[in-house]
Amino acid sequence: MKKKTSQQASTKTTPHGKLWGGRFREHTNRLVETFTSSLEIDQRLYSQDVQGSIAHAQTLNRAGVLTKREAATIIEGLNRVRRELDADRFIFLPHDEDIHMAIERRLTELIGPVGGKLHTGRSRNDQVTTDLRLYLREALASLTGEITQFQRTLITQARRHIDVIMPGYTHLQRAQPVLLAHHLLAYVEMMERDKNRLRNALTRINVMSLGSGALAGTNYAVDRAYTARLLGFSSLSENSLDAVSDRDYVIETLSALAIVIMHLSRLSEELVLWSSQEFQFVELPDSFCTGSSMMPQKKNPDVPELIRGKTGRVYGHLLGVLTLMKGLPLSYNRDLQEDKEALFDALDTVSTSVKLCAELIGGLAVNRPALAHAAESGYLLATELADYLVTRSLPFREAHEVTGRIVRDCIDQRRDLRTLSLSDLRVYSSLFEKDVLDVLTLEGAIERKAQVGGTARSRVASRLKVLEKALG
Amino acid sequence: MKKKTSQQASTKTTPHGKLWGGRFREHTNRLVETFTSSLEIDQRLYSQDVQGSIAHAQTLNRAGVLTKREAATIIEGLNRVRRELDADRFIFLPHDEDIHMAIERRLTELIGPVGGKLHTGRSRNDQVTTDLRLYLREALASLTGEITQFQRTLITQARRHIDVIMPGYTHLQRAQPVLLAHHLLAYVEMMERDKNRLRNALTRINVMSLGSGALAGTNYAVDRAYTARLLGFSSLSENSLDAVSDRDYVIETLSALAIVIMHLSRLSEELVLWSSQEFQFVELPDSFCTGSSMMPQKKNPDVPELIRGKTGRVYGHLLGVLTLMKGLPLSYNRDLQEDKEALFDALDTVSTSVKLCAELIGGLAVNRPALAHAAESGYLLATELADYLVTRSLPFREAHEVTGRIVRDCIDQRRDLRTLSLSDLRVYSSLFEKDVLDVLTLEGAIERKAQVGGTARSRVASRLKVLEKALG
Amino acid sequence: MKKKTSQQASTKTTPHGKLWGGRFREHTNRLVETFTSSLEIDQRLYSQDVQGSIAHAQTLNRAGVLTKREAATIIEGLNRVRRELDADRFIFLPHDEDIHMAIERRLTELIGPVGGKLHTGRSRNDQVTTDLRLYLREALASLTGEITQFQRTLITQARRHIDVIMPGYTHLQRAQPVLLAHHLLAYVEMMERDKNRLRNALTRINVMSLGSGALAGTNYAVDRAYTARLLGFSSLSENSLDAVSDRDYVIETLSALAIVIMHLSRLSEELVLWSSQEFQFVELPDSFCTGSSMMPQKKNPDVPELIRGKTGRVYGHLLGVLTLMKGLPLSYNRDLQEDKEALFDALDTVSTSVKLCAELIGGLAVNRPALAHAAESGYLLATELADYLVTRSLPFREAHEVTGRIVRDCIDQRRDLRTLSLSDLRVYSSLFEKDVLDVLTLEGAIERKAQVGGTARSRVASRLKVLEKALG
Amino acid sequence: MKKKTSQQASTKTTPHGKLWGGRFREHTNRLVETFTSSLEIDQRLYSQDVQGSIAHAQTLNRAGVLTKREAATIIEGLNRVRRELDADRFIFLPHDEDIHMAIERRLTELIGPVGGKLHTGRSRNDQVTTDLRLYLREALASLTGEITQFQRTLITQARRHIDVIMPGYTHLQRAQPVLLAHHLLAYVEMMERDKNRLRNALTRINVMSLGSGALAGTNYAVDRAYTARLLGFSSLSENSLDAVSDRDYVIETLSALAIVIMHLSRLSEELVLWSSQEFQFVELPDSFCTGSSMMPQKKNPDVPELIRGKTGRVYGHLLGVLTLMKGLPLSYNRDLQEDKEALFDALDTVSTSVKLCAELIGGLAVNRPALAHAAESGYLLATELADYLVTRSLPFREAHEVTGRIVRDCIDQRRDLRTLSLSDLRVYSSLFEKDVLDVLTLEGAIERKAQVGGTARSRVASRLKVLEKALG
Repeated sequence: MKKKTSQQASTKTTPHGKLWGGRFREHTNRLVETFTSSLEIDQRLYSQDVQGSIAHAQTLNRAGVLTKREAATIIEGLNRVRRELDADRFIFLPHDEDIHMAIERRLTELIGPVGGKLHTGRSRNDQVTTDLRLYLREALASLTGEITQFQRTLITQARRHIDVIMPGYTHLQRAQPVLLAHHLLAYVEMMERDKNRLRNALTRINVMSLGSGALAGTNYAVDRAYTARLLGFSSLSENSLDAVSDRDYVIETLSALAIVIMHLSRLSEELVLWSSQEFQFVELPDSFCTGSSMMPQKKNPDVPELIRGKTGRVYGHLLGVLTLMKGLPLSYNRDLQEDKEALFDALDTVSTSVKLCAELIGGLAVNRPALAHAAESGYLLATELADYLVTRSLPFREAHEVTGRIVRDCIDQRRDLRTLSLSDLRVYSSLFEKDVLDVLTLEGAIERKAQVGGTARSRVASRLKVLEKALG
Repeated sequence: MKKKTSQQASTKTTPHGKLWGGRFREHTNRLVETFTSSLEIDQRLYSQDVQGSIAHAQTLNRAGVLTKREAATIIEGLNRVRRELDADRFIFLPHDEDIHMAIERRLTELIGPVGGKLHTGRSRNDQVTTDLRLYLREALASLTGEITQFQRTLITQARRHIDVIMPGYTHLQRAQPVLLAHHLLAYVEMMERDKNRLRNALTRINVMSLGSGALAGTNYAVDRAYTARLLGFSSLSENSLDAVSDRDYVIETLSALAIVIMHLSRLSEELVLWSSQEFQFVELPDSFCTGSSMMPQKKNPDVPELIRGKTGRVYGHLLGVLTLMKGLPLSYNRDLQEDKEALFDALDTVSTSVKLCAELIGGLAVNRPALAHAAESGYLLATELADYLVTRSLPFREAHEVTGRIVRDCIDQRRDLRTLSLSDLRVYSSLFEKDVLDVLTLEGAIERKAQVGGTARSRVASRLKVLEKALG
Repeated sequence: MKKKTSQQASTKTTPHGKLWGGRFREHTNRLVETFTSSLEIDQRLYSQDVQGSIAHAQTLNRAGVLTKREAATIIEGLNRVRRELDADRFIFLPHDEDIHMAIERRLTELIGPVGGKLHTGRSRNDQVTTDLRLYLREALASLTGEITQFQRTLITQARRHIDVIMPGYTHLQRAQPVLLAHHLLAYVEMMERDKNRLRNALTRINVMSLGSGALAGTNYAVDRAYTARLLGFSSLSENSLDAVSDRDYVIETLSALAIVIMHLSRLSEELVLWSSQEFQFVELPDSFCTGSSMMPQKKNPDVPELIRGKTGRVYGHLLGVLTLMKGLPLSYNRDLQEDKEALFDALDTVSTSVKLCAELIGGLAVNRPALAHAAESGYLLATELADYLVTRSLPFREAHEVTGRIVRDCIDQRRDLRTLSLSDLRVYSSLFEKDVLDVLTLEGAIERKAQVGGTARSRVASRLKVLEKALG
Repeated sequence: MKKKTSQQASTKTTPHGKLWGGRFREHTNRLVETFTSSLEIDQRLYSQDVQGSIAHAQTLNRAGVLTKREAATIIEGLNRVRRELDADRFIFLPHDEDIHMAIERRLTELIGPVGGKLHTGRSRNDQVTTDLRLYLREALASLTGEITQFQRTLITQARRHIDVIMPGYTHLQRAQPVLLAHHLLAYVEMMERDKNRLRNALTRINVMSLGSGALAGTNYAVDRAYTARLLGFSSLSENSLDAVSDRDYVIETLSALAIVIMHLSRLSEELVLWSSQEFQFVELPDSFCTGSSMMPQKKNPDVPELIRGKTGRVYGHLLGVLTLMKGLPLSYNRDLQEDKEALFDALDTVSTSVKLCAELIGGLAVNRPALAHAAESGYLLATELADYLVTRSLPFREAHEVTGRIVRDCIDQRRDLRTLSLSDLRVYSSLFEKDVLDVLTLEGAIERKAQVGGTARSRVASRLKVLEKALG
């Protein structure tokens, strides 16, 4: 939706076109008007604002503040306003400070002075936080769905490559062989936690603050529980001062989003590494890369790079809102207006990044020979050798020491562990027997790790099945 | 606990005194040793490390890797090590890189080579995150208790001052009268959310990562569910790669702590304001203030100022850990070592700040005359006037406009609203009747706000009762 | 400038409308195209891009790569493109990834294949950082001018109120009397440091990176010093790898901006405090405040509140760019694209905030009686009493102790220091003589502080003169 | 220096052992005493505190406030205190709030009541910022020296490997050949900017704030310029309110440090990449790596990983201090105490990291064959081919397109560019002549980039010479 503005004067409900102008003598300074306007940002809330206003009108009717006819007129008018906004036919006026004032102003144009009854027993302070909570509820549901979709893609790729062995890394050094499927499922687990965090946040988001007035509550006998039912809120705020100045839920959402994109930054880093000429583990689809303006051969992993870069943006928004809340006395302060742009941009950024990661993973071409080659080298079986000695009753710490010496000598002689004969090995320890050679296989190393969470194929397959069922 | 170190040589379990030295030819550089050592920070985990190691030994015994006797010897040895550490008799050696290595080294000194069997099927990667999760579980339980204690103090003061009216503020401008008790309970609600966030975090903290090995799982047929039962973990990590590189729970805890101290920074700001000569709403106890080295009359609200200042510290730790996790490839990377100092300092800072806030609030002397005086002035009843007109069927928006003009004229004439006669009021609107004068009382304004969350005394009293019951 | 886009196909310079498409088989994914496009952000650089391109064409001509005629055609074409952009007649196409590609594409449409010669020996990597440096050079010059204008307003108000005494605060407690002019000039000093920081940053901004190519330099014998002269750069980058991946100047600018707005947040806090009913030191002009949608009497200091809130936004941008740079290998990575939105928004935010502060301070109505009243109370003269005793040879530390006791007793008896008679004082110390009473005046306290930086009127007046001359 | 504390009572200079206790009735709460104490942190400033106090005593003497004898006694006493601290013989008492109070307390113990004259005309507010500025002046000089030492190491390695060609990267994709020396010198340039930033910061650090008193200046006719000369400050603060509340220089230093460690994080990332099995460009010395507790073959690049991780720590400190300064009213507030721990830790972290980077680079074993092999592959010469066509008058944009197609076909056929014959090439463009084959060499590609900042050997050598001379 694009904002349309017009210089034509508003119908004169109040001096200066402001709905709060009674006490004021001077017009608002132009630069101030631009500076304090939040319309460009908060017009995104128009649908929630109409929804909340309709519920408020119904509640006022139930409380006897509005007659049935007045309520019906207001609701009908609000629906007209919403249709104008849906169809991008709504004309914003220069004096519209925010979407809430714009909608009320337009409502009164459409239905006359009775429109001025809508704001009875309500303040922008409780109205705006109600709108934002409604919006977040929807946005998080949608994001959760996108994350699930991304998980499904990871699972599909894991299933497709269930037999592919690759080096597992610590410190970016090859460490032990793992299944590519196991590696991909690690991200499924991270995303599962992310969804749980968002769900937990929802219990604190889905609280109705309407009825808190400006700060002290409302003078009208409104039934807040009724409004909450109309709007699908699961509980009521219990303190009006807190309700209008609480932005915990914004910060908590931003924190959860920061962790999501941190996870994506790790995946992005891996995609950048894996598509380098040095790794060559995967190829990204052409349609997800761009070229160089100067170097004709380049195919750059722009999308993962940009996701990695956008991590800073989301972190910055989190810290921005934390900073703005620091040290504010109760209750509402205008500083709070700054919460929305940060939140919306973080939501958009994370949502797009999740969708792109799903597409990236879905389009990944896995270079099986390169992965196999990498898993073969690098002494990835050294731990197997140490554990072999442990089964021969050597304390692990000594087995580790012995194996360390074997590896060191192999490096010096540029030999692979698997080229060692039994007699070679027995130089280091007489505990080595013939069966040690069976231990030195990638497949064996994988299969032995069959405990919950291990990389054994059976274990990974069983986790895959659980996840497929849960996310299917 | 203070770290004791000694230059005396370790018993020579391995070259260079390192438990991983087999592969290495050179000694570790001295500056490197200091730089990479985490002992000063992670010795705080010693008790959890022993606890986890005991459970690991029991699990190895059950899996047939350790004999019953070996397990018993190791467990007895670990308990001796713990007692040394408890009694501050443990001597750290220069080569002890971290608490885990120090404990294993000492264990082997005490019980001989069998100590070298403890690390079978385990890596520091899964060990350290297990220790940290155990530690956090305790730390959050303790913090939650401190928060509850703080809430109780707020509730006690609210109960004690249930009849005290004060100005409620928005934009730091006097807005509407509220009960001081209502204001204090706003912080109880914030703290209630804080505890819920910490409880939610706990579901992701209380997961057992032991058994993930270095990254790929373990070669031994250990029963991870058994270990989890021994350690009181409620679930198992399901992916070894994820388990050793996951620090979500650290970030999530830091985020929750950042919100706690943000709340305290708001309370601190209010205490600073309220104890200023301009407000004079409260007096802080002498024992919580300090004087000036130069100005003999000063009594400074140092404690709330410092808490406010320490907000930056906690935010900084959150950012620090988010930054360090950004873009790390799987699985474990040494960068992760940096998580603990940030976490511990944030926990300490928030815990102390909560305790101090409890004491500050508990010791607060409330200046009732000053609050009453402030509530009397400032046109706090203007909204009541507007709402009166609404009951006379004027649309709220017009009632707001009329009242705004009345206030403006009162300001010009330096009159209080309550000095206006009925005929004065009727100049602005013929809807005013005699009963309007009943509307213009602080008590009435308070009492009309009786909806859930409102500041009416009955409503505040009923919330107080609910909270007292819940937190008693 | 608004972006206009059109679905009409570009002239087919290359497949898919991309200028780097030769190596690619697939079209770019639509979501990717939106995600990677920076056009909405970087079109702000169009004028600098044309400027840089003209200098590049001249340099290529001088190097013999372009003929005089070719260069002239290109320059003429670039000027036509600029005029289209100036007049908002430029039509952006869906395939325009960024402003650089859009301009080159349009140039080639206008002048034919010779347009394809402009990018010889240049990459977007060196081009974009050159544009950004040109832009920043102008933006900082303009910001510095705005800061100076703000300083002038502060100076004017200081001059106007040179005789107004107010309480100086530490810990938000009244401490010693100061001149309001002295207080206002404190902000002039802060702004002076801010300008110096920006000037220092400029020495690292005003460096020409053009000629660094994609990362390794250029194959053409271009005279980079000539280009630098054409563009007014004061030095050349000395390492091509560094030049294309350096964003220090962005971070440094953001840091300097963060400090500027931190200063403004302090001023804003003071304006919020001073315009509260408790302080009443100043009144903000109606045109800089807004009202409440619910409470008719409210006049809220929205502008300082929002500036204070926007502090978080600027901090967030700084941290965002720091985060994105962390751990990036050399040389250019696509992550860097994320630098511009943060930078532009921070520049806009700080520039507007500075201008608004100038207007706020310029429009401030100072409440002299309130300031005088506040300065009279609060034992602000206690230090004078202690210093009096020092002149009677009592060590300061003992004088401080004696005066502390006097103050304590006065507080208990609700007496002001100036009501004490000589005999009252001599109860505490026999060193008090008749002349002590002369010491206990606000004017005297002010006048004694006549050292450089002190609040004595003569000293403040002399600093005012220096500043007026420097900034006039 | 370790802090020694004792429970033995202080000599009773004042009640409660506090130097500001006169006004107070209650003892300070124990938890408060611990919470507000900064001694553990600020004892690091002891030497600067003594230095500043000596200069203050001299200034008081010159102003006639202290007699010559008194000044001499005080200075002698201060020197004794310093010797106690130097020798770690100083006993801190429980009531010592900070190093300033501890030193004054001890001074008075040593020389009697005349010690109480030292604090005449001074406050901790101006004292502490003076000490911190003195400390920073030294710390930055020392850090600058360490950076220079690191640069020298980079230069030495560059000189040693002046003939080594490696692939230059953009987007972590091989892009064009560069000299390893050119790559190393990129970091020298970064460090050069870092030093310039620190030097610029110094102009704002090296300002004397002593004489500002608590906030308003001092009542004594002290000659501040004289004190500044004694302490080597190059200018005087010009506004006392600003001077005691200014922490710009802390933030500016932290920003500069954040950029330094950001640079080191990039180098660290490269060292981690380069020492991976996939790159194998370098080997780190054993003495800078550690092993795995579980996997015997591991040699982990812990030091660069930890430096990369510590980036978060320094960013966090910057954010922490920015946060604490946000919205503080003038002048001094206790929040400011929180600046020092962040600053000291950032200084220590960056200093150690710089030193370790110097050692890491110095000890780097470069794998020339691996670098050569990597430079041979990857179509790094594609740009040369395009530029060849440009010299045959094809517009660059078309040359880029033609070359892109050649590369694409080579990839499909798994051929290297250098295996193409002239007739192969002429399929794509008749502009290719026999001399094109001369273009396709790594050396040629390097040598053509001879402009300022380019990677040509001559150019790199000449830059090396300049840097060696400047930094030698």
